[in-house]
Amino acid sequence: MAVLHHSLDFILSSPVDSASTVPSLLSIFHEQEMTETVHDTKGHGYLATLVGKHGRLALLRVHSHGMVTIDLQCYQEDSVAEVDNLLNALEKKLKALLSGNIKRFKRLPALIRGAEVDRYWPTSDDRLIEYDIDQVLYEEDSAYQNIQILHSKQYGNILVLNGDINLADSDTAYTHAIMGSGKESYTGKEVLILGGGDGGILAEVVKQKPKMITMLEIDQKVIDGCKTHMRKTCGDVLDNLTGDCYQILVEDCVPVLKKYVQEGRMFDYVINDLTAVPISTEPEDSMWEFLRLILDLSIKVLHPSGKYFTQGNGVNMTDALTLYEEQLEKLSCPVGFSKEVVCVPSYLELWVFYTIWKK
Amino acid sequence: MAVLHHSLDFILSSPVDSASTVPSLLSIFHEQEMTETVHDTKGHGYLATLVGKHGRLALLRVHSHGMVTIDLQCYQEDSVAEVDNLLNALEKKLKALLSGNIKRFKRLPALIRGAEVDRYWPTSDDRLIEYDIDQVLYEEDSAYQNIQILHSKQYGNILVLNGDINLADSDTAYTHAIMGSGKESYTGKEVLILGGGDGGILAEVVKQKPKMITMLEIDQKVIDGCKTHMRKTCGDVLDNLTGDCYQILVEDCVPVLKKYVQEGRMFDYVINDLTAVPISTEPEDSMWEFLRLILDLSIKVLHPSGKYFTQGNGVNMTDALTLYEEQLEKLSCPVGFSKEVVCVPSYLELWVFYTIWKK
Repeated sequence: MAVLHHSLDFILSSPVDSASTVPSLLSIFHEQEMTETVHDTKGHGYLATLVGKHGRLALLRVHSHGMVTIDLQCYQEDSVAEVDNLLNALEKKLKALLSGNIKRFKRLPALIRGAEVDRYWPTSDDRLIEYDIDQVLYEEDSAYQNIQILHSKQYGNILVLNGDINLADSDTAYTHAIMGSGKESYTGKEVLILGGGDGGILAEVVKQKPKMITMLEIDQKVIDGCKTHMRKTCGDVLDNLTGDCYQILVEDCVPVLKKYVQEGRMFDYVINDLTAVPISTEPEDSMWEFLRLILDLSIKVLHPSGKYFTQGNGVNMTDALTLYEEQLEKLSCPVGFSKEVVCVPSYLELWVFYTIWKK
Repeated sequence: MAVLHHSLDFILSSPVDSASTVPSLLSIFHEQEMTETVHDTKGHGYLATLVGKHGRLALLRVHSHGMVTIDLQCYQEDSVAEVDNLLNALEKKLKALLSGNIKRFKRLPALIRGAEVDRYWPTSDDRLIEYDIDQVLYEEDSAYQNIQILHSKQYGNILVLNGDINLADSDTAYTHAIMGSGKESYTGKEVLILGGGDGGILAEVVKQKPKMITMLEIDQKVIDGCKTHMRKTCGDVLDNLTGDCYQILVEDCVPVLKKYVQEGRMFDYVINDLTAVPISTEPEDSMWEFLRLILDLSIKVLHPSGKYFTQGNGVNMTDALTLYEEQLEKLSCPVGFSKEVVCVPSYLELWVFYTIWKK
């Protein structure tokens, strides 16, 4: 039983006296059988809490700096019409009382707290975003992470790993960007995919008939969930761990990369589709050292004329992007890089993708 | 002085007794010199309001159906570190107290209420979205509407009309879609743009050297704001009302369209870039009748082999989209239509665009 948190905010041109606004608002609450407790705010304006039937709770504040805020919490099973009427009555009354003094009025969509299906997945720069998620299709805690596949009305099915949105059915722009935005040909090439358990990249690269794709995905449970619930993204490439021109190794990429380096194996393309903070069985020092280790090993197995693609971060995460680029200067082999800003529909923020090559 | 509204939500597998959770939480509040009032909730769990220094206010609820919620409101000038410490202490203590019984824990980014620059512009299906808006560049109330040009870190400058996001610097996908997604050639053609005061479509069509573009924009103040603050979108096409192959008529499109119909004028392309609820000096009956009037007049001035482009609505607004399509069946001239779903970066939702033609 979720709590709906409604808010009405009146931002004023100049402060108002609570005596001129409060009594007629209280009378609206009284009609709804809500009774108030007035608090001593030690000089920070007027504050009353109101408790009513069905677990309804309201806060009425007349802020001394020129704002009136009303919060109303009620349970989702409470009458929508009754709650709406109450909010409408409060809005109408306050607009009349504060007429000419309102700089901005804001009534936000209610915050839904504790719903069966959670709809809030903030952006990388920690902004509040409400998704249109209506169903949890898959939820597993693997040895490595929490895995969810959610359904969004507009984006289709979405893979969420440890609370981070990875990929939705709508996100061919992601796969396109991390494959070089249509500027590369994979035909006849040796390709290494790190991570990529949703199968999106694999399904796209396979279409171009490469010589061989090796995909290193640590988590069988991601593959299991995606091959059932992300078929629009992966097609049938996850149904078997090997195909005409690909093999999926369900392994930690770090020891495999180390082995490839020792063997002198080379790839034309390395696509790093690992989670933002990669999961590994290897001991981690700091996150950045670990990221650099993966980068270093990847560049070592990259053909001199090859390319390494990876996703970076939200475009607003300028500090994290700078730190990432600083790691590129510390690799054992000098590299060049370019970046591209791409709109991935389900991310609800612009995302930076990197192309890296041996200098 | 904005109010920051923080929330901590613990969704539980089974209800808990407030006696086992509340005392040690209260002690954390007491350390912060906050004092509680315990309310009679008439059987709806435990509820205390806590009032403290600097206008801080907290709500502590142990819901009888198995959820613990904490709300903390404080002013933006309050110490971020102190507030964070308090929230962290509450989170840590509750995680310890409820260990093994937590189905989900959610701490959302704080809701910012009453800030100088408003960051919340909900989607068409009324979901809560926080933009990265950091500056208001232009704000005017014209005779027709409220006009704002806002700055977003990632999307660039954004034109907002009557609270609806119209277009951002990032949104070439919008202009591309409403011009037929690259499948049309405007070279040598007669083009009519309805609305379009941001100049985005005009700037793009001009590049293709059409015979003549006529743009009917009702609001000079939109043009004034955009020619200064949306130059990445409009270039210099709004600097003058006439150019080599275009004229901008600052007029209500309805009487002009009526005149064109009477004169028998024809256009190869009509691009309807009016606001969702068009603004006019004409008397409106119902919104749908008015939309149909504009559609009808537009189709009448469309060359038999011409195309009419317009934006529809958010892809989740299925009822509104169906109603729109029903209007298309009621026009005085039979039409066919197709639609396309497009990701416009700053919209933060997928958007439907229509192509309409004479049957």
